[in-house]
Amino acid sequence: MTNNSLEDQIVKAISSVVGDAPVSLHEPLFIGNEWNYLKDCLDSTYVSSVGTYVDKFEEALKNCTGAKYAIAVVNGTSALQMSLQLAGVSFDCEVLVPALSFVATANAVTYAGGIPHFVECEESTLGIDADRLMNYLADISVVEGGQCINRSTGRVIKSVVPMHTFGHPVNMKGLMNVAKTHKLSIVEDAAESLGSAYAGRHTGTIGLLGILSFNGNKTITTGGGGAILTNDSELASLAKHLTTTAKINHDWEFSHDRVGYNFRLPNINAALGCAQLEQLPKFIEAKRSLFAQYKRAFAGVDQLRLVAEPENSYSNYWLQTLLLSESVENRRDDILSETNRRGIQTRPSWNLLHTLKPYKDCPRMDLPVAESLQRRIINIPSSSQLAGGLVD
Amino acid sequence: MTNNSLEDQIVKAISSVVGDAPVSLHEPLFIGNEWNYLKDCLDSTYVSSVGTYVDKFEEALKNCTGAKYAIAVVNGTSALQMSLQLAGVSFDCEVLVPALSFVATANAVTYAGGIPHFVECEESTLGIDADRLMNYLADISVVEGGQCINRSTGRVIKSVVPMHTFGHPVNMKGLMNVAKTHKLSIVEDAAESLGSAYAGRHTGTIGLLGILSFNGNKTITTGGGGAILTNDSELASLAKHLTTTAKINHDWEFSHDRVGYNFRLPNINAALGCAQLEQLPKFIEAKRSLFAQYKRAFAGVDQLRLVAEPENSYSNYWLQTLLLSESVENRRDDILSETNRRGIQTRPSWNLLHTLKPYKDCPRMDLPVAESLQRRIINIPSSSQLAGGLVD
Repeated sequence: MTNNSLEDQIVKAISSVVGDAPVSLHEPLFIGNEWNYLKDCLDSTYVSSVGTYVDKFEEALKNCTGAKYAIAVVNGTSALQMSLQLAGVSFDCEVLVPALSFVATANAVTYAGGIPHFVECEESTLGIDADRLMNYLADISVVEGGQCINRSTGRVIKSVVPMHTFGHPVNMKGLMNVAKTHKLSIVEDAAESLGSAYAGRHTGTIGLLGILSFNGNKTITTGGGGAILTNDSELASLAKHLTTTAKINHDWEFSHDRVGYNFRLPNINAALGCAQLEQLPKFIEAKRSLFAQYKRAFAGVDQLRLVAEPENSYSNYWLQTLLLSESVENRRDDILSETNRRGIQTRPSWNLLHTLKPYKDCPRMDLPVAESLQRRIINIPSSSQLAGGLVD
Repeated sequence: MTNNSLEDQIVKAISSVVGDAPVSLHEPLFIGNEWNYLKDCLDSTYVSSVGTYVDKFEEALKNCTGAKYAIAVVNGTSALQMSLQLAGVSFDCEVLVPALSFVATANAVTYAGGIPHFVECEESTLGIDADRLMNYLADISVVEGGQCINRSTGRVIKSVVPMHTFGHPVNMKGLMNVAKTHKLSIVEDAAESLGSAYAGRHTGTIGLLGILSFNGNKTITTGGGGAILTNDSELASLAKHLTTTAKINHDWEFSHDRVGYNFRLPNINAALGCAQLEQLPKFIEAKRSLFAQYKRAFAGVDQLRLVAEPENSYSNYWLQTLLLSESVENRRDDILSETNRRGIQTRPSWNLLHTLKPYKDCPRMDLPVAESLQRRIINIPSSSQLAGGLVD
């Protein structure tokens, strides 16, 4: 290869790991009991809101995450909406959300009646910068009557939503300090981090509540699905009640004591989830192996680094991530064009939430690091099966 | 049988049709291409938000209903929330909802920011009584600036939601008159009435928007799922955009121009739906045959009648319904107890919406007919396969 442009170096490094055929950013893999369980579910005729796979899936999630309670729901967005409501978010509350996240994190706040308040991220974790947040809240808020009040808007700041970006755990120790000092509840958005742990604890089980996603692009999939995690038995009961239309238990009577939601995960999706979850350890092993292979392949490529798991944490490496040096951040779109043109699916991070039309007037910190990260992040093909060894 | 109590007569009539084995109120039936399509979907790895079955299912729904546009979504409740928002329901609007309906009808109004306003039903259709509603609105509202204003609350009454109870079409002609006179949009809750038609038009396609449900207890099922129907191309585009996170189309960029929703129907659920929808004509034929069989079996039982399709309409007979005479309405709970005790699953109608804790303070008409119906309705086993002939 005579052409030695950055684009070409990147294409060459990726191809050396994943081969020359067209390759997606992330694809699911069904090499376990998926078909057996789906067929069993269909044969039972219990494909919908009643059935044993939902219970089995919730049990398996508890075993896998160490959460005392897991409630399977229809998707991660609904899980986050419900968790925020359970954490006390209601009309006109502010909720601290990282500027660098998928839009669902902010949307869930809106559905719960709240207003997202965007906060800065750090380069080491790609998640919320706890130190800067601590200082920021000291500047702009005051604790009154056990609540954090935004002095300029007069609104209660109720919760903070750490999002474990691309599977890499946030600095939860720092955030727990922030939450304690400023009287915030923590709702973890662990949509991307099934299998990831911070200081030995599974992401999503450290805050008051946490959520998972099993969308088709995630480490495991149920088609569409999500879960609420918590160690609080009252919140768990309420989560189950409210996500199943708040129906009062009775042999035949239909009565409902709250405004509930139809957020049940169908049994057929749970059946798929049970089969997928059995394979999670080997999927994560493969994804960590893929990181090591990329690490070697990119060793000679200057002007970028491959994002590695932060200190004190264990990452599922959901999406493998290149972080360009600032000096070449203006090359990002050329790299994206060239890799996609050559059949290697890559993408930048999401546009920052405070730049989106529906959220441009929301309160926010100065966000120089999030803005810099957004200009420099490129996600590259990350499927488990690319590591080799999983499929013949 | 020497004992000739009403309970025993009912048990005997039902058993004469469905046999003596325990029997559910409604069960799905998978005797078509369900396995094939599910397996094909799994083999394709496109089980989630991308995939061809969603498109195929939407096409099939258009063909089946005659709607110009059909948007598949995650469930009927989400379909109704989105349809109400598209029909202009927002914070503090009132929405006219039949008192006799499943709680989701009222909940969807609440999610959209509105306030349900409960209206009277009629015995002939079990749905909204258009004549009484016309008179009621003349009394309590006034049209100002093209909007219907509730004179006592000062709020805009934006929409009316006819619900086609147990599959039986509402008096849509009367309601269209009400809507025209009082400047209301019509959003049809056709969750229960897939395959039912009013004056030759499929339910859900007559109002501005309509919704379907494919929950496990419905005539066909996708596990969990629903759809939005409309003949308006702009509303259809917006419905698709808003139910798929309002993402702006781009090869790799993630930008969103509205507060969107994650309401996509997963491809795997759509695959099940495609197989089920192919069988809809024979399911409905069976359900209509079951009605005829029950009709004969109950011919000698006084003090009740079997609910038949209203004039000028064609019903899918989703749930077969006994309507007790007023003289024996106090026997309803004994009948429910005895039938369920003997393995025949029956149930009363839902508790009326205005009696539920979250909705007890909402505005409402006098509701003597809805209250009477609620005391007298008993749904009896209704699955397609009970008609005989579908399964060996």
